[in-house]
Amino acid sequence: MTDQKLLLRALGGETLPVPPVWMMRQAGRYLPEYRATRAQAGDFLSLCYNPELAAEVTLQPIRRYGFDAAILFADILLLPQALGADLWFVTGEGPRLSTITDAAGVAGLRPVADIHETLSPIYETVRILSRELPAETTLIGFAGAPWTVATYMVAGRGTPDQGPAHAFKAADRAAFSALIDRLTEATVEYLSAQVEAGAEVIKLFDSWAGSLKGADFDDFALAPARTIITALKARHPGLPVIAFPREAGARYEGFARAVGADCLALDNSVEASWAAARLQPDGCVQGNLAPRHLVTGGPDLVAETRAICQAFSNGPHIFNLGHGITPDADPENVHRMLEAIRG
Amino acid sequence: MTDQKLLLRALGGETLPVPPVWMMRQAGRYLPEYRATRAQAGDFLSLCYNPELAAEVTLQPIRRYGFDAAILFADILLLPQALGADLWFVTGEGPRLSTITDAAGVAGLRPVADIHETLSPIYETVRILSRELPAETTLIGFAGAPWTVATYMVAGRGTPDQGPAHAFKAADRAAFSALIDRLTEATVEYLSAQVEAGAEVIKLFDSWAGSLKGADFDDFALAPARTIITALKARHPGLPVIAFPREAGARYEGFARAVGADCLALDNSVEASWAAARLQPDGCVQGNLAPRHLVTGGPDLVAETRAICQAFSNGPHIFNLGHGITPDADPENVHRMLEAIRG
Repeated sequence: MTDQKLLLRALGGETLPVPPVWMMRQAGRYLPEYRATRAQAGDFLSLCYNPELAAEVTLQPIRRYGFDAAILFADILLLPQALGADLWFVTGEGPRLSTITDAAGVAGLRPVADIHETLSPIYETVRILSRELPAETTLIGFAGAPWTVATYMVAGRGTPDQGPAHAFKAADRAAFSALIDRLTEATVEYLSAQVEAGAEVIKLFDSWAGSLKGADFDDFALAPARTIITALKARHPGLPVIAFPREAGARYEGFARAVGADCLALDNSVEASWAAARLQPDGCVQGNLAPRHLVTGGPDLVAETRAICQAFSNGPHIFNLGHGITPDADPENVHRMLEAIRG
Repeated sequence: MTDQKLLLRALGGETLPVPPVWMMRQAGRYLPEYRATRAQAGDFLSLCYNPELAAEVTLQPIRRYGFDAAILFADILLLPQALGADLWFVTGEGPRLSTITDAAGVAGLRPVADIHETLSPIYETVRILSRELPAETTLIGFAGAPWTVATYMVAGRGTPDQGPAHAFKAADRAAFSALIDRLTEATVEYLSAQVEAGAEVIKLFDSWAGSLKGADFDDFALAPARTIITALKARHPGLPVIAFPREAGARYEGFARAVGADCLALDNSVEASWAAARLQPDGCVQGNLAPRHLVTGGPDLVAETRAICQAFSNGPHIFNLGHGITPDADPENVHRMLEAIRG
């Protein structure tokens, strides 16, 4: 049965006549049914920690669009919360966390073994989804990569240039490395529990990989990804993993092989023709329509969707956006995108 | 005399033991003397159109730091204003313009020949600078590239994804092309007048080049740059030009040759080792320290500055940032950067 799922076939290296498709943030505010369920849950975190409602919003875009994959509804900052950080969301602004800016802060984190106490509702969401998803739909689990999660833990919020994390790294590289190591270890446990609950594929989001250069990229983006993927595959042989070193630019080249990923997710800065020539020979690629097309629609949406399918047609490809769909997207444009892909 | 200027030597293809250096937005709010002069001028636009004060803020960072180049103090949106757009700045938010969203709007622009009426104070600033700069300092004139300027003219403001310009392009490509053509023609006249007033080098800023893909990149980033540079060099033989197709990613490769630029300015997404291997063989490169280092300072600033110098040491290189210096930068950190470069 499993091998009939298109997403798994593409991840296995198969070139398909029509690529499987899903969208980052497909369970999101552009959908009226999502907004209704979120209102029912209360705030964003309450929705994340309510297995029935989190499963419901995960299923909504599958019902509406028949995507080839569902991605667990959760947030990359639940893991730092499970490690002891305070976490809350400010409406219209985004996440806020208690900050960790020195060795004492790192030492004060809870032990990795304790994370499941906080995260068990997430595993329950995965179990519900595993039962309720259609047979042809692949279930993707995910986590933030250690560097990206660390940037929020150090700054206490999102930042345009990840300055506080860079400053911590510059001030005390050993302590910062200890934070990355702790997150790496916790991420393995978190993702492994998702797989045990029923996730069939794992995606590792390194949203801020692009601000790491040279040896920093090697130490804090590449090495943790390799450690996590190696450990996961040792425990769960054959588990496919999608890596997303967002805005890594030229460092995309060779990344999949270096970390042992089955697929590279491409951000919107990556030119499809370049990726087809330089990345696709190493395995599956995923991406990378610009989300604005789902706001503006029109002939450009259809032309660009087809151009991406065409550029990647000679190798394994999963169609996706280069970034999450935005709240102002028109749900009808998603149907138009799917028609352009599936014909 | 001219050939003794380090910046011109690097632009001519010479590999220097110490790279010449300047910073994007070096005349900016991080400097107390800039803030004082701006307060004297009133608002931002009044400063741009006051030749004495605009020259003064251009000279301030040269006096303080001895940079190898001064860049004219102006704004890329003065050109649309000269073409008839209303322009104003909202404090703390940024520029606002009357919008152009269809063929009638494009047709309603003022003739290119009329731009000098508005822009003559800018040429006067260049003339003052040409007289007052030290003999070793190169004077750089600049303009926004047509696509980037068009994104503001269509949206009436800065936008995260340039959606309105993409929508106009999708809805009526002929009218959008007419806007780009008008801007291309006007940019040639504007930059040519800057050169006649004394600018020794021209930099073309395509800040939003990264949101153009495939044929759009060819038509709206590459072709206008080639037209502008070809026309400028025909009128001013030997004029060096720096192109800045920001966030062009893989499209950086071959760009300098394709448009006839002498130098490619690199944004912060570009890895120095990649650029040294793939871009520097075509000519000079400029960049690309992350501006956050001038906020955080410390050993990271010195190490990263030296790493960039080292990566580009086997070819022509101008040291700069990958983006403009930010208002929260510490002016002392600029001295530390210069010490790391010049020893």
